[in-house]
Amino acid sequence: MSKTLIRAMILPMTGPDDFYPEGEIAIEGDRILSVGPKGSAPAGFVPDRVLDLPNDVVMPGLINTHTHAAMTMLRSYADDLPLMPWLTDKVWPFEAKMGKEDIYWGTKLALAEMILSGTTSMLDMYGDMDRVGDAVLETGTRAVLSRGMIGNAPNGEQAFQEQIELVENYHGAGDGRIQVMFGPHAPYTCSGEFLQKVKAEADRRGVGIHIHVAETLDEINTIKEQEGKTPVQWLNDLGIFGGHVVAAHCVHLTEEDINILAEKKVAVAHNPESNMKLNSGTAPVPEMIAKGVVVGLGTDGASSNNNLDLFGEMRSAALQQKLKKDSTALPAYEVLEMATIQGAKALGYEDIGMLAPGYKADLITINFDQPHFYPRFSIPAHLVYVAHAGDVRTMMVDGKFIMEERKLLTMDVKKICQEVEQRAKRIAAEFAD
Amino acid sequence: MSKTLIRAMILPMTGPDDFYPEGEIAIEGDRILSVGPKGSAPAGFVPDRVLDLPNDVVMPGLINTHTHAAMTMLRSYADDLPLMPWLTDKVWPFEAKMGKEDIYWGTKLALAEMILSGTTSMLDMYGDMDRVGDAVLETGTRAVLSRGMIGNAPNGEQAFQEQIELVENYHGAGDGRIQVMFGPHAPYTCSGEFLQKVKAEADRRGVGIHIHVAETLDEINTIKEQEGKTPVQWLNDLGIFGGHVVAAHCVHLTEEDINILAEKKVAVAHNPESNMKLNSGTAPVPEMIAKGVVVGLGTDGASSNNNLDLFGEMRSAALQQKLKKDSTALPAYEVLEMATIQGAKALGYEDIGMLAPGYKADLITINFDQPHFYPRFSIPAHLVYVAHAGDVRTMMVDGKFIMEERKLLTMDVKKICQEVEQRAKRIAAEFAD
Repeated sequence: MSKTLIRAMILPMTGPDDFYPEGEIAIEGDRILSVGPKGSAPAGFVPDRVLDLPNDVVMPGLINTHTHAAMTMLRSYADDLPLMPWLTDKVWPFEAKMGKEDIYWGTKLALAEMILSGTTSMLDMYGDMDRVGDAVLETGTRAVLSRGMIGNAPNGEQAFQEQIELVENYHGAGDGRIQVMFGPHAPYTCSGEFLQKVKAEADRRGVGIHIHVAETLDEINTIKEQEGKTPVQWLNDLGIFGGHVVAAHCVHLTEEDINILAEKKVAVAHNPESNMKLNSGTAPVPEMIAKGVVVGLGTDGASSNNNLDLFGEMRSAALQQKLKKDSTALPAYEVLEMATIQGAKALGYEDIGMLAPGYKADLITINFDQPHFYPRFSIPAHLVYVAHAGDVRTMMVDGKFIMEERKLLTMDVKKICQEVEQRAKRIAAEFAD
Repeated sequence: MSKTLIRAMILPMTGPDDFYPEGEIAIEGDRILSVGPKGSAPAGFVPDRVLDLPNDVVMPGLINTHTHAAMTMLRSYADDLPLMPWLTDKVWPFEAKMGKEDIYWGTKLALAEMILSGTTSMLDMYGDMDRVGDAVLETGTRAVLSRGMIGNAPNGEQAFQEQIELVENYHGAGDGRIQVMFGPHAPYTCSGEFLQKVKAEADRRGVGIHIHVAETLDEINTIKEQEGKTPVQWLNDLGIFGGHVVAAHCVHLTEEDINILAEKKVAVAHNPESNMKLNSGTAPVPEMIAKGVVVGLGTDGASSNNNLDLFGEMRSAALQQKLKKDSTALPAYEVLEMATIQGAKALGYEDIGMLAPGYKADLITINFDQPHFYPRFSIPAHLVYVAHAGDVRTMMVDGKFIMEERKLLTMDVKKICQEVEQRAKRIAAEFAD
């Protein structure tokens, strides 16, 4: 088994007071052996490789709890439009033209961008998820895959079958780097019957559910009209909650809704930039955290963001809450927890999201030897309010380096960028005239 | 005179349809000679140097219309606190300990960060502005300097005298790279009499006024109680408007206030991230633009931001307006105009803020050969919604390169970072009983 020792500043995310200004972390195989101050690695630990980065901060890899990776294909294709024309005239027609290989290359591009911005794990929802799984397996990151199923669409049943195949073929693949969840799209695109069928099948196969919930006021009004209750209450009454569920967005919630999410241990994926850009609203994040709801951070797809950068997302999460509530809302360390340990819990992992003995070696280093990181009064505040994607230097996933000095070790970046450029422009050209 | 030719993609900011995918820009001395497609440089133009950057976008340098550069010294010193304890227990006591040389080094750090994030010009307000001027002169960027004057403070008169000396010694320095404006702090910290004295002196010396206006609801209430009108109406009735005035923040405005700003040609410095972080509110930016008010972008000080990155600020400006109004508010190109040509107008320049013949050669190049800039559907959307500070590769100010390949050519970055680290920690230690 490979043995690596990293010497750097360490923010292990094991608690707000835990920080090693001159720390070292020992890694054996895919797991962390020890984390602590200089000299704390076990006696007898002889590393194959020592990485000396005294001006870098090592922290757990960031976790993106809600995205549609392949939508990088639509990045900056349509912006600044009203929601419905944006969807009906731009996004949906483009997506309808995307084939399996477009999704593969779009996902590769997303993974390249995620690695360069510090994200080691994602929860993805899209179609042709087998090719998404292939892209993740080749790249070496971690992912939870869900087949987006619009129950009310003509292909709802086919999507359900693909979801089942996805579980059979990819759940646990890559030494467990890949997990699968069922992905019914949303309360307003799936019938109660379809959702219950999905829940039964997911339970039978021992996997969770990833679903959009309470994203817009339109959704709230639609479900209230149809069912006489909020989307959260309707899903709860249908029996969808209980077990592992990730509800993406949760922008518009009543107090009762929050109580249900807390009681049923539904995790929430909060997507501040998408919620702002699409005028969805401001999710009650501090209120959910106060009631014990697990809240992770997500970027949503690159079509409504337009990047997959969780550093920007952390900053936006904090600023959005402070704008709505007051300047004390969602302090820096809490935001970092959302992007790491809370994200890990949301995705159902018990051994990622912090740097501690026995945890998987999923980590990043951030180059703090730059003007914007001086003076060094607060590492958490610097990471949330100052850092940007370009500051990430190194990434390790499952004990393997996949980026060093911003060079991607498992990807041909040039080829990926060219493929996406050609494929995306070819699709867009079909609508031009 | 030096002659430089840059070949790259060019976004000249001369109009929404102007873009040269394979462009070239010819620079002679400190000014732009020509901008256009490949081969457009005048016949007979023989450059000393050719810079070939086919995958970079060249655009005008960004303009920060409101900052307190030296406050980098307080970066991440205090965050997530209520406004008044943050100011009275943290910011003000720290600032009271800052000497002339602390301000010099804090400004040097700010300039390093600004260059690395694409900002060529700033409008600054602080104390000991002579040393700020020195830092700018050494560094080679462009700046408008204003001595912050709290008229009601014991040192109000002294600040006024320093402001006059600043005009005499620095206005027009560095071949015009430095300009000076008067800096009365705000309506709630200066009497009407003081403001009128400042206005008279500024007029006599032919320089403008830079003042905080309508930043918080507290300010609105205070001035309404004291004067029976809004801050904008009070300043207008005092005769402060007319001539060159930059009003920073303008978060809380009535329709009449906006009409006054438009009629009196008062420029506004919009600071979205500071306004969010301090819970000040959302400025009516689209409403001001619709009425013809010149609105630039600012970062405010690093104590309430906590960086000086205008790329982040552009993104936040757009997202904040979309959250408040709708997804069509403040489209990408308009945001870019705020950060370039509108910022230039706000600062009183007629020959920066766009790339056009006869304009000063203040420009940056952005490395678009990275995964997050593919596919290339919209350069403006990429710059506003995707780009981050680390993407800036090159900077030229006044025809001289001051950054290439992210190396600062006029600064000793290591020394600056060390100086600031030591000075800031020494000041903070004085409070750590």
